[in-house]
Amino acid sequence: METTWVELERQARAWIVEAGDAIKQALHRPFHIDAKSGPNDLVTDVDKSTESFFYDNIVATYPTHHFLGEEGIADRLDTLDGIVWIIDPIDGTMNFVHQKRNFAISVGIYENGKGKVGLVYDVMSGELFHAIEGVGFFINDRKQSPAKGNELAQSVIGINGNWLVKDNLPIQPDLVDIAKTCRGTRSYGSAALEMAYVASGLLDAYISPKLSPWDYAGGAVLLQEAGCKTTRFNGEALSLLERGSIVAAKPSLHETLVSTYLHKGEST
Amino acid sequence: METTWVELERQARAWIVEAGDAIKQALHRPFHIDAKSGPNDLVTDVDKSTESFFYDNIVATYPTHHFLGEEGIADRLDTLDGIVWIIDPIDGTMNFVHQKRNFAISVGIYENGKGKVGLVYDVMSGELFHAIEGVGFFINDRKQSPAKGNELAQSVIGINGNWLVKDNLPIQPDLVDIAKTCRGTRSYGSAALEMAYVASGLLDAYISPKLSPWDYAGGAVLLQEAGCKTTRFNGEALSLLERGSIVAAKPSLHETLVSTYLHKGEST
Repeated sequence: METTWVELERQARAWIVEAGDAIKQALHRPFHIDAKSGPNDLVTDVDKSTESFFYDNIVATYPTHHFLGEEGIADRLDTLDGIVWIIDPIDGTMNFVHQKRNFAISVGIYENGKGKVGLVYDVMSGELFHAIEGVGFFINDRKQSPAKGNELAQSVIGINGNWLVKDNLPIQPDLVDIAKTCRGTRSYGSAALEMAYVASGLLDAYISPKLSPWDYAGGAVLLQEAGCKTTRFNGEALSLLERGSIVAAKPSLHETLVSTYLHKGEST
Repeated sequence: METTWVELERQARAWIVEAGDAIKQALHRPFHIDAKSGPNDLVTDVDKSTESFFYDNIVATYPTHHFLGEEGIADRLDTLDGIVWIIDPIDGTMNFVHQKRNFAISVGIYENGKGKVGLVYDVMSGELFHAIEGVGFFINDRKQSPAKGNELAQSVIGINGNWLVKDNLPIQPDLVDIAKTCRGTRSYGSAALEMAYVASGLLDAYISPKLSPWDYAGGAVLLQEAGCKTTRFNGEALSLLERGSIVAAKPSLHETLVSTYLHKGEST
């Protein structure tokens, strides 16, 4: 008997809640912090143990499925054939370390590169953003109506201030122009949560010049089911195997952002 | 019999919770939105009715006290003599309008210009940050230990991206330098909440070139009781009668921010 996407989502949720409980316990104990690509790219042993928890469960339960995670516990994938779980065990590790909140577990389940299930779980608030392709976008089981779109001048945009001051980034002047033109900017420090906020209508758009597939795999499914568009800066489809830029918004605002400001940005 | 600060805080909390409940009710109905100083400076009839609620109660209960509020329901004050309630009925009106969360009621009670009671209430999350001079800083009645301080390079700084891209602001290059040097920036869209986050240790500092007394009167008391320092960019004491810049942080980081980056900034 074939497993349905609804059943897979239910199983993923059960693991997410269990992993979230373990993370909450871990916050009561000292944990080890390392730097990865640079001094501000943090990873903790909790990131690693949470990824292992998902990997071990998925391998044991769905031996034919594939796995792609931030901490590289599984072998790197070079194809999206079949069913692939793309997981960020703690998205927003800096928030995890500094705030002990405002971080998320992000899970995207893809079939032959197509988003089927997306889950973004704000561990400390208990807010679960979830979606199944063709079924819709939900927050804690409440189905969400598509939010109305705003023009750029009336929009609140999620963009990290660090990108606005990044001199050697070719697209930086365009990001500055967006920040000057919109109604306001916000930055929460978790791409997965910020994409969930766009899907929810809390933000009108989310923009980042460089993210990895595990940062956006879950959020991209939420956005798709919430009627939003998510692409690279130049309008190309996201890759789930390579990192790159991301712009997520309602279709009309997305069109403005890409055609007026971001289209010159690198695709990956 | 003289009213004590503990009694005043208890009364303020009761009104804050009652006002918060009314705001939550108001979110279920359409509300009217106006622009004030510019198209992105929003005010709603809920801001105004909430300020009236506080004003009416304070005048009736403490007829000798004075009142300063964002919406100008009381006459403007030209002195801080006596006991003054300084109130922002909804701090983060843009969040109130766009997100229906992440806004706060902020109340500061001052005696002859000295902060005695501070309350910042995140209406939708129910998180109340409160402090009484000499008693300490609390979150929902749990007394908080002073957070350890971080160096700038390991700090997460609350600063709005809109200031980082503000060309005609003389201090803007220094704000950019801070954003480039720190570990990360965040922006939540409510000065009162961001000051409460510094007091709580969720942020290491909060920086804004232009705020009004009602934005910071409550937060400044929280910060004082949490062992943090809050001044103008040039290190001068805050005025509660005039708007101006603000930098809030643990003393060591505050010293770095003022002496290395902000001291040239305007005092008001």
